[in-house]
Amino acid sequence: MSLLVVGSIALDTIETPFGKREYILGGSASFISLTSSYFTNDIRMVGIVGYDFPKEELKFFQSKGIDTSGIEISPTLKTFHWYGKYHLDMNTRDSIVTDLNAFEHFDPKIPEKFKDSEYICIGNVDPRIQKSVILQINSPQIIMMDTMNFWIEGKLAELLETLKYATILVINDSEVKLLTNDNNIISGGLKILELGPEILIIKKGEHGAILMTKKDMFSLPAIPLEKIVDPTGAGDTFAGGLMGWLHRTNDYSFENLKIAVVIGTVMASIAVEDYSIDNLRNVDKNLINKRIDKLHKISNFKNIVVE
Amino acid sequence: MSLLVVGSIALDTIETPFGKREYILGGSASFISLTSSYFTNDIRMVGIVGYDFPKEELKFFQSKGIDTSGIEISPTLKTFHWYGKYHLDMNTRDSIVTDLNAFEHFDPKIPEKFKDSEYICIGNVDPRIQKSVILQINSPQIIMMDTMNFWIEGKLAELLETLKYATILVINDSEVKLLTNDNNIISGGLKILELGPEILIIKKGEHGAILMTKKDMFSLPAIPLEKIVDPTGAGDTFAGGLMGWLHRTNDYSFENLKIAVVIGTVMASIAVEDYSIDNLRNVDKNLINKRIDKLHKISNFKNIVVE
Repeated sequence: MSLLVVGSIALDTIETPFGKREYILGGSASFISLTSSYFTNDIRMVGIVGYDFPKEELKFFQSKGIDTSGIEISPTLKTFHWYGKYHLDMNTRDSIVTDLNAFEHFDPKIPEKFKDSEYICIGNVDPRIQKSVILQINSPQIIMMDTMNFWIEGKLAELLETLKYATILVINDSEVKLLTNDNNIISGGLKILELGPEILIIKKGEHGAILMTKKDMFSLPAIPLEKIVDPTGAGDTFAGGLMGWLHRTNDYSFENLKIAVVIGTVMASIAVEDYSIDNLRNVDKNLINKRIDKLHKISNFKNIVVE
Repeated sequence: MSLLVVGSIALDTIETPFGKREYILGGSASFISLTSSYFTNDIRMVGIVGYDFPKEELKFFQSKGIDTSGIEISPTLKTFHWYGKYHLDMNTRDSIVTDLNAFEHFDPKIPEKFKDSEYICIGNVDPRIQKSVILQINSPQIIMMDTMNFWIEGKLAELLETLKYATILVINDSEVKLLTNDNNIISGGLKILELGPEILIIKKGEHGAILMTKKDMFSLPAIPLEKIVDPTGAGDTFAGGLMGWLHRTNDYSFENLKIAVVIGTVMASIAVEDYSIDNLRNVDKNLINKRIDKLHKISNFKNIVVE
């Protein structure tokens, strides 16, 4: 069993009310691969970086058991650079700079040896690329994908076509509304479950996440944090925890999907407490278990019957 | 043991994307009293209405075992009338008309026979009035109050003075931020717990509610609804369910506070599915228990330890 991760690998400049960091590791594939590595093995990463990408970061991924041989290194172009500035509430941000560089022509050829991957996790890229990746895999068992308003607004036909192949769609609540023209995320969510994905996970940031299938629903709060340093990659970290757990257990019963959402939530809460992937570089299992327990404590109650 | 409810009693005109209703029953005291009546007895209502207030609505409250003898009827003025128009997302609204009428000079004299009330629930009114009510009660055991941005911005000193007396404060997430100048509702919430209230409940609308004490925290999602007809009074219905349950059980352990938040959430979900108090007029215990069970199902998960 293998988990293929396809997405961006970037060097980010992040500015928040708490400070600024330049050219730190970012990108959806980085967060997803690294996070899933705490739960499973056989992770394969596909992406593109520039000639300036730090070799030690590739070695770092390898040290986590991640196969980086699918990462193309452009000899002539720089690594994708995104400069984001967060506002005071940390929920909104401006993109100051988006230099696609090597990522501009990202059109991944999945290495032959990766084509037997069963679990596929595709970050937020052009839906045409997402579909191309899916079609290169022999017999994918679980396909998770992300998307964003940019593709919903600009490439809706392509996105709808790609969605037909997806098993799990992970998107934000605002994207549910945009994709379905429905202001209610529950009825909107049910509409999305008619488009292809059997499983929908709606990320609501500080308000937690909702897991939906046609039959069942689960709603989990975020772990309350007194300080959020850098929300970049929180959604991808969530997806990485989720997919890492599913790949580890190979059990997609609703009860285990709930645990996967718990794992994703816990990992995201760890990631946002420092810049970039810094808090994810060495995560103690004890910390993960403490947070699962905390989440259990703050969200569970004893069922009662009112007489 | 008695529960005193003090607040507005209004005739509302409500416009939503689904339709418009004129001069329907509203006001915080209406929603709180009625909702709590499904869980407890000895509810005493204090408020003011105009000469135009329908007698059958007073009789309706009485039919629920609510003592309405503390409701003053102005012989010369009309009932408080609020006309609210909800936007398409149902989360934001405009006040088209606010005719205070009889409510303008609301300065409640608590009837002698009500002064032994142990549980006090004061809706969102001028903090000066809230304090005046509190000081008229002999030995209140639990004092719950609500407030809003209008008082936080306009009468902060009076509000801070009144907060010293409160046991439970129930407010919105945006009000936490406004009251504490803190964009993080968790650290903001902890600041509020230094101002008087031992228990803080943060309402987040469709995102649920957070219960906080200095030591513990509980986060509950809202019940997912595919259609919300009229959100008016949802917060007061929540408070009514919460206080009704606490008064019934007279147990304010954290475990039972959690159940009180569950009850409030369930009742609010019932209220918003129709206009005004219409869905609260005859609530079946089976419906309440079904929703408690649904909430349990969508929010509880089995704790695990990652090896």
